[in-house]
Amino acid sequence: MPVATTRITVNAKTYQLPTQATVIVCVDGCEPDYLAQAVATGHMPWLKGALARGTGLVADCVVPSFTNPNNLSIVTGVPPSVHGICGNYLYDTATNTEVMMNDPKWLRAPTILAALADAGKSVAVVTAKDKLRALLGHHMKGICFSSEKADQATVETNGITDVVQLVGKPVPSVYSADLSEFVFAAGVRLMQVHKPDVMYLSTTDYIQHKHAPGTAGANAFYTMMDGYLGQLDAMGCVIALTADHGMNPKVAMDGTPDVVYLQDWFDAWLGAAAARVILPITDPYVVHHGALGSFATVYLPQACDVAAACAKLQAVKGMEVVLTREQAAERFELPADRIGDLVVVSERFTVIGTSKSRHDLSALEVPLRSHGGISEQRVPLIVNRSLPGLDTARRFRNFDAFELALNYAQ
Amino acid sequence: MPVATTRITVNAKTYQLPTQATVIVCVDGCEPDYLAQAVATGHMPWLKGALARGTGLVADCVVPSFTNPNNLSIVTGVPPSVHGICGNYLYDTATNTEVMMNDPKWLRAPTILAALADAGKSVAVVTAKDKLRALLGHHMKGICFSSEKADQATVETNGITDVVQLVGKPVPSVYSADLSEFVFAAGVRLMQVHKPDVMYLSTTDYIQHKHAPGTAGANAFYTMMDGYLGQLDAMGCVIALTADHGMNPKVAMDGTPDVVYLQDWFDAWLGAAAARVILPITDPYVVHHGALGSFATVYLPQACDVAAACAKLQAVKGMEVVLTREQAAERFELPADRIGDLVVVSERFTVIGTSKSRHDLSALEVPLRSHGGISEQRVPLIVNRSLPGLDTARRFRNFDAFELALNYAQ
Repeated sequence: MPVATTRITVNAKTYQLPTQATVIVCVDGCEPDYLAQAVATGHMPWLKGALARGTGLVADCVVPSFTNPNNLSIVTGVPPSVHGICGNYLYDTATNTEVMMNDPKWLRAPTILAALADAGKSVAVVTAKDKLRALLGHHMKGICFSSEKADQATVETNGITDVVQLVGKPVPSVYSADLSEFVFAAGVRLMQVHKPDVMYLSTTDYIQHKHAPGTAGANAFYTMMDGYLGQLDAMGCVIALTADHGMNPKVAMDGTPDVVYLQDWFDAWLGAAAARVILPITDPYVVHHGALGSFATVYLPQACDVAAACAKLQAVKGMEVVLTREQAAERFELPADRIGDLVVVSERFTVIGTSKSRHDLSALEVPLRSHGGISEQRVPLIVNRSLPGLDTARRFRNFDAFELALNYAQ
Repeated sequence: MPVATTRITVNAKTYQLPTQATVIVCVDGCEPDYLAQAVATGHMPWLKGALARGTGLVADCVVPSFTNPNNLSIVTGVPPSVHGICGNYLYDTATNTEVMMNDPKWLRAPTILAALADAGKSVAVVTAKDKLRALLGHHMKGICFSSEKADQATVETNGITDVVQLVGKPVPSVYSADLSEFVFAAGVRLMQVHKPDVMYLSTTDYIQHKHAPGTAGANAFYTMMDGYLGQLDAMGCVIALTADHGMNPKVAMDGTPDVVYLQDWFDAWLGAAAARVILPITDPYVVHHGALGSFATVYLPQACDVAAACAKLQAVKGMEVVLTREQAAERFELPADRIGDLVVVSERFTVIGTSKSRHDLSALEVPLRSHGGISEQRVPLIVNRSLPGLDTARRFRNFDAFELALNYAQ
C-alpha cells in the first residue's frame, strides 16, 4: 500500500497538503488602506480580531498591477515570467492581432489548485467575473464557476449546478458590489454544504474603482466581506487574504482623468501607427475605468532606437519609469516575448491611454480611480493564524498566499 | 531723478515688481488630490474656472515635507541649503540642545517679501499659527500677524492693530479649521481695506491631518477656501496657490499608526542614547499628528560606521531611503551642518518615531494622517492667469510661486 502523499511540488515550490479547510481570498483592488480605515473605524470587527490573533503582512503584487497576471500568480505561486499571463490583453505577434488573455492557451504553468485536486483534495473556485474562470480552473478537477454566470453552471463544465439555489441570491449585475458579495456568499454555502479542502475566492473591484478608502461606500463593502469571512473563520477555516493590486485616484486637479495618450504621442513623433501601444488593462468591462491604467507596453518600428525612445519618453511628465523589454522582464519578472519593446509605468496619479479618440470616458460617473503601476503594488497578505517559523523580514508577494496558508498556518 | 526700480534680485533670482495686487497662498498639507476630488464633485467652482482660464501645475515641495522648510522656501525662492530652515525642530550641535527652528536667527537668506517691501511695495502676511510669523516677517516692513494671536497684533510688532475688528471674527482655536478660515477672511479684508501690493497667506493643516481627499470634512474646507479666493480674484488679484507639503494616511491594516520607533531601534543596536534621533516635524502643536512624520535625522556616535548604519537601516521594513549627510544635502538641497549623520525617509504609509514611550498617541481621534517624506512631495502650483512664455516641461517647485506670479502672470 503506497504511503499517502503529504506534499506536492508545483512550479518548483513545495506545499504541504492542507489538514484543515483552507480558503485563499483575492480581494480585487484591495489597497491596504481600505482595510486600515475600515478597521480603525469599527467596520471590520472580524478582521480586527484576526489581525490581533493572526498575521498581517503587506506584500508586493506583480507589476503590471492588473487582475489576470496577479490572480494567475497567486494560483501558480510564481510570477508571469513562469506562468506567462502578463496582462488582461496582449498583442499576439504570431497572428498580428490584439487579443484578450483569458484563454488557457496562454498559460505556461500548472496551478496549485489543479495539483491539490490531483493529490486528492477537493477544490472549489468562485470568481466574480467569468473572464478568469477558464484560467483559474485550467486542468482542475472540482468546482469552478463565476458569479457572473452562476445560473449557467453545469456539472460537466463547472463541477456543480443549481448554484443560484445553493447561494439563495439572484445572479448579480456584472457592474455591482453584489457580484463580489455573491462570491463570498457562495464560498460560505460551499463550505457549509460541500466542505471543500481548499477554496479560492476572487472578487471584482467595482467598488474600489469608485470609492476611496474610509468612505461610506468602501466601508459598506468591507463590512459585508468581514461578515462572510467571520462565518468561514467560525467554521474553522484557515483564511489567507490578499489582493491582485491596489487602487489610486488618477485625476488632475480639475477632476478629469490625468491621461498621457501614448499612441498620440508616438504618432506625433514617429508617424501614425508606426508604433503600437498596448494597454494590458483592456478588458470587455471598461465602464469603471475607461481602459485607463498606469501601465502600457509599446511595440516600436524596427528602425527606432529603443534607448532613445526610452529616454525621450522618460522625460514626459507623469512617467514613473520607462524600461526596455529586457529591463522590464527582469525587474517585473515578465515573459519577455509578450511585452513589447518598451514597458511604460506612469506615476501614482497618472494613467496611460492610447489615442484620445479611442477612450470613451463618458461612462465614468465618479473621478477616475485605477491601477496598473508600481504605485498600486502594495497589497495585504493576511492569515487568520499565527505563522510560527516564518521569516517576516523577507519580501512578501501576494503569490506567497498558498505557501503561508499551507506551509505555515496548518 | 532716479529711474524707478522695476525688478529686484533676491537670492540670485530676479523678480519683476508687481503691477497688479498679487496674492501667494500656501495651503498647508494640500495634497493635489484634495483639489481634484473637490473640483470633480462641484465643491470648488472658482478653482474649476481658474484652472480652465489659468495655469494648473503639479510641483515638488522641499523634503522634509514639513511646514517651516517649505514656507521659508516659498518666501525666499530657494531651497533650505540656501535659507537654512530645514525642519520645524533641530539638534543644535553648538549648544548640544534640541530646539524649535522658529527663531529668525536660523534664517540664512533674505525673503522676497522683505525685498518687495524695501523696493517700496506694500506687503501683508497672514499665517495661521504664530510659530511661523517671526520667520516670514523677518526684516520685513509691513503687516504680519497670525490668526492664533490676531487679538495681540500691534502696529509696532505687526504693522497693524484691531485685526479682530477688521476681520469681524473671533480669534479661533489653534486646533480648528477656523484658524485657516481666519487667514483667508483676513486676506480678503486686508485687500479691501489696506490694498497691499503683495500678500502672503499661509494656513494650517488641521483639516488635512484628519480628513482624506474627497471626504465631507475636506470638501467643506476647500469650499470655504474657494469662496475667499473667488473674492480676491473678483478684486483683480493675481493669485498663486501652492502648498508646503502633501498628506497621506499613515496607518497599518489594524488602523493604528504604522510607526518605526527609530530611537528604540538604535538603542537596541548601539546601546541606550548612543545615537540621537531627531524628528524635525516636532512642534508645540502635536495633538493631530503625535509628532509622527515620515522623516528623521540621526546623529551617530563617533565610532559608528555610517555606511554600515545606512545599509542596516535601509533593510528595515517601511524605510524608503536612508542617506548619509552628504547624500541628503545634495539630493534634498539641505544645509549639511544641520541634518545629522543620517537622513531617513519612510514610505508612504509609515512614520518614524523616537521611542515608543515618548509618543502620546492618545490624542489621535482619527486614523493618523501625516507627512514629511518623499510621498508627500507633490503639491499644487496654480495661478489664476495663463502664463505666456513659461516652459511647462521644466520641474516645478512650490518655491517657484513668486517667480510665476511676478514674472509671468502680470
